[in-house]
Amino acid sequence: MGNLYIGLVHWPILNREGRILASALTGIDLHDIARSARTFDVKRYYVITPLKSQQEIAHRIQRYWLDLKEEDTTHRAEALHQAEIVATLDDSLTHVLNIEGQRPLIVATSARSLHKERVTFDRLRAQIEGEDRPVYLVFGTGWGLASEVVQRVDAVLPPIYGPGEYNHLSVRAAAAIILYRLRGRSE
Amino acid sequence: MGNLYIGLVHWPILNREGRILASALTGIDLHDIARSARTFDVKRYYVITPLKSQQEIAHRIQRYWLDLKEEDTTHRAEALHQAEIVATLDDSLTHVLNIEGQRPLIVATSARSLHKERVTFDRLRAQIEGEDRPVYLVFGTGWGLASEVVQRVDAVLPPIYGPGEYNHLSVRAAAAIILYRLRGRSE
Repeated sequence: MGNLYIGLVHWPILNREGRILASALTGIDLHDIARSARTFDVKRYYVITPLKSQQEIAHRIQRYWLDLKEEDTTHRAEALHQAEIVATLDDSLTHVLNIEGQRPLIVATSARSLHKERVTFDRLRAQIEGEDRPVYLVFGTGWGLASEVVQRVDAVLPPIYGPGEYNHLSVRAAAAIILYRLRGRSE
Repeated sequence: MGNLYIGLVHWPILNREGRILASALTGIDLHDIARSARTFDVKRYYVITPLKSQQEIAHRIQRYWLDLKEEDTTHRAEALHQAEIVATLDDSLTHVLNIEGQRPLIVATSARSLHKERVTFDRLRAQIEGEDRPVYLVFGTGWGLASEVVQRVDAVLPPIYGPGEYNHLSVRAAAAIILYRLRGRSE
């Protein structure tokens, strides 16, 4: 079992014009990415937003499902259990450090090609399976991670493509594919 | 380029107790799966529901985005352009038949292991790339496709797993992974 962590950044991210902003929390991101994270053995899923009102919404969604005791919602509760709502990327890194006792390898994901050292999916998969060092994958919302985040990571994963050049996947879909690529199995 | 079609079935599907019902349309399924479909070169994405009120909601969402002429929404419009809202699986099959001039190979997807002939991801990928015959992938909502749908398909794809046994992915996440597995590329 590898030590994989993920974070979903709502600030600082880019808007269409390349300006830095904070994006609003999307309830379905909390659910879908938590379920994918649970399926692909992610240890913690950090929902990162400095906005108190947004943190409160995330906490309320999480509490609602954790408090429900109905039988058909246990798999949702199990997934949301691992979500941690934090203010900044640094807060989440401190959290990982406290669990693991060492700084994780921080890897950004992007739909664009970033000017940064790349790590291939195969190499990162092998590293996670090798368990040498925890890995922390960072996902952006909006139009992607701000360059101040990208500058701080150790490496970036290449974009996901289909047969053509269109690659406007939702962050939920991209996260599912990337986690599958790193930890999934299928016949 | 292969001739790949997908359908999202809202009836007949199963609820938690294994009873047949119609599920409500989820707006985000329309968007996310359309964007994944466009990325992975799906020719048509059928949203299947016999409920007129639900069809109208789907049409309204689709029209809203197709009518928007703002620059940052063109990739959404491009994705939703391929969505077709139909009443039944048969209607969608007739639609594929009209485009392709032949019946597609119909393949069900499921989070469970179904008693049915399996096709592996690698074999189906090769078949799509070979372009011998169109392929139509069927996705269920709720707790999965009713057995009357499964009985009618030609084969099923195996479930997607992570390192453990938990595989409660959202249909949006599962569709993204399955389409990536059949048509995606990454370094």
